Amino acid sequence: MTQPLITLTTDFGDESPYVAAMKGVLLSVDPAARLLDLTHEIPPQDVRYASYFLAAALPYFPPQTLHVTVVDPGVGSERAILYAEVAGQRMLAPDNGCLTALFAERGPPTNVRRVRASRYFRPEISATFHGRDIFAPVAGHLSLGLDPAKLGPSVGDWVRLETPAPQQTKDEIRGEVVFVDHFGNLITNIPADMVRDRPQLVRIGRRMIRRFTWVRTYAEVQPGEVALLVASDGKIELAIAQGNAARRLRAGPGTPLVVLFRSLV
Amino acid sequence: MTQPLITLTTDFGDESPYVAAMKGVLLSVDPAARLLDLTHEIPPQDVRYASYFLAAALPYFPPQTLHVTVVDPGVGSERAILYAEVAGQRMLAPDNGCLTALFAERGPPTNVRRVRASRYFRPEISATFHGRDIFAPVAGHLSLGLDPAKLGPSVGDWVRLETPAPQQTKDEIRGEVVFVDHFGNLITNIPADMVRDRPQLVRIGRRMIRRFTWVRTYAEVQPGEVALLVASDGKIELAIAQGNAARRLRAGPGTPLVVLFRSLV
Amino acid sequence: MTQPLITLTTDFGDESPYVAAMKGVLLSVDPAARLLDLTHEIPPQDVRYASYFLAAALPYFPPQTLHVTVVDPGVGSERAILYAEVAGQRMLAPDNGCLTALFAERGPPTNVRRVRASRYFRPEISATFHGRDIFAPVAGHLSLGLDPAKLGPSVGDWVRLETPAPQQTKDEIRGEVVFVDHFGNLITNIPADMVRDRPQLVRIGRRMIRRFTWVRTYAEVQPGEVALLVASDGKIELAIAQGNAARRLRAGPGTPLVVLFRSLV
Repeated sequence: MTQPLITLTTDFGDESPYVAAMKGVLLSVDPAARLLDLTHEIPPQDVRYASYFLAAALPYFPPQTLHVTVVDPGVGSERAILYAEVAGQRMLAPDNGCLTALFAERGPPTNVRRVRASRYFRPEISATFHGRDIFAPVAGHLSLGLDPAKLGPSVGDWVRLETPAPQQTKDEIRGEVVFVDHFGNLITNIPADMVRDRPQLVRIGRRMIRRFTWVRTYAEVQPGEVALLVASDGKIELAIAQGNAARRLRAGPGTPLVVLFRSLV
Repeated sequence: MTQPLITLTTDFGDESPYVAAMKGVLLSVDPAARLLDLTHEIPPQDVRYASYFLAAALPYFPPQTLHVTVVDPGVGSERAILYAEVAGQRMLAPDNGCLTALFAERGPPTNVRRVRASRYFRPEISATFHGRDIFAPVAGHLSLGLDPAKLGPSVGDWVRLETPAPQQTKDEIRGEVVFVDHFGNLITNIPADMVRDRPQLVRIGRRMIRRFTWVRTYAEVQPGEVALLVASDGKIELAIAQGNAARRLRAGPGTPLVVLFRSLV
Repeated sequence: MTQPLITLTTDFGDESPYVAAMKGVLLSVDPAARLLDLTHEIPPQDVRYASYFLAAALPYFPPQTLHVTVVDPGVGSERAILYAEVAGQRMLAPDNGCLTALFAERGPPTNVRRVRASRYFRPEISATFHGRDIFAPVAGHLSLGLDPAKLGPSVGDWVRLETPAPQQTKDEIRGEVVFVDHFGNLITNIPADMVRDRPQLVRIGRRMIRRFTWVRTYAEVQPGEVALLVASDGKIELAIAQGNAARRLRAGPGTPLVVLFRSLV
């Protein structure tokens, strides 16, 4: 049987010795562990970005993959560390809402536990680096086959981020940008199947956009033109072909986006 | 026998969930796949950068390595996806010219195929994310041993980027910068063996450089001095020791570089 | 027995084909090598950053891990390449001081050798890219089990960076910032156990800080407040909760930091 994978997602930065130290500790517990970096460039302490990231990536992995997330502004405080299972995947993450989107879309989670069994931690716990001293060794023990029940008590509640739902009326859908990708594309919280008519206008922030094209792919518009399309996660996306919509339209996570189905006469 | 490697090269950005999703899909098809990141920081949609990158890196890999490249401004359009073999390596890439330099230096390629067999794709294909829905699962099947002939028909033509050749006269060689590395070193398209005499002057863009040293290594000049030398790919390179030549000389890909063999009296 | 790991640490940049070429060469020598990226984002030619990084990360790895470091401003010059063993780890690095902190904290090293046996190099050696032509193939041979004694003669001396020690008087401790992490936290060279009383004032550069809190974790202060605490490496750290201390206090490596134990009346 193939050794299950362990993925790592942090906000430590690619230039950081903290990621390397975590890998060292994990591999010292299980030298045969199969590590895979997802990203170490989650914006610092951005739990909301982490939540989007995990929901967009984790469901594609083979069953039983263990996903370790350390985006942890509350490190050293009383915030809990969670083990959870959802959609065939296993998670180890701080209880700060970073699993909100994943649980909402693929949940509910099962076997959720509060990680407390310090015999699986490093002997000395730094107050500022639980990634190295708790998450990494616990992940190593899970890689070796540890029963998650031994990590701590089962819990039925956890931190959830507030996630505003899009609002629909006869003439418009009001949503917001939830993610800006590397290309500057603006991904919203509006499911594509909510859009049943041809959009006539788009408002992003306070800016009304009259010239845009409702397309299937970026390649259908000329470089520099605004495109409205369905993102790869099934949500509505506003993009500029071969350009950066976030910069040009000065928009980012939280910016309201309204799709209108009637022209303003 | 050791499982062949699969490398990944994209312009998705290290902070992107798109890379993670591709890895998940690939590993779901072949859980034993051996993945290796080459880079996810190709500048957005920069097919020319990708072409240089692949030619500079791929030839060093063990035979039968599969290199998956997703730098794909035409995603979702009618552009083809190619499978090809060259110099013992195997490639999966959009047909947009990103294999130009590799084919020119190590080609011609063999067993070039247009990837069409949708039974190796994910069941639903996003119009904007073929990396996840086509490239990743196809790579997973190749990792499992799929015969590339099953991917689609053999083709004899593909997209090539225009690549200007350096011009040589008695008194000078005219070339251009083709790549700027992380240190700001300017790599040109002028093969070192074209330079048979000692260069007297260098013109970069419109700027004439009189004070430079023709050296073998950066360490032969003082920090901050301009050096002309042979890059690790055998081409002529203009560098500033422990400094950034691209920034200081305001040069980048496409900037003309002329090596002169006579002083202007 | 599990194949030993090989880690890679460079200043080549994540977007660089140089890292990819090194991986290719190494894997061509030992196709079963288990590679792990530590970072390729050491600031260009910053041997001091590399020294901190390696000391902070390497000791956590399993015994016999081989750590390959290429931060090498002197490439192609007469600087030596070292093989060394310390704290159960194995190192391959240019002899430019990048192992200073590791040797100081975990040393002395044993079996230190000057790498000279060119039969383990690539046949042609670029004067500017020993990473690809010397470090990578030598690492591949070590991965295959090569006895390090075959690499070259044993040596008893190597380059050391100057590392100023903190100075303590009755009323204050004078140290300096040695590392700025991704969050902008300022890590100093002052060991936590030197601080026996409650700090009253902190001076960073020329700036006196009167409002700060001496805490155990970031979470104990409000976002934006200055915290003095013990970093995960056991040294004194100055941080701004959920903010960037380096930017706000305009400090970086080498900035003096003084902890005072009496208020200035």
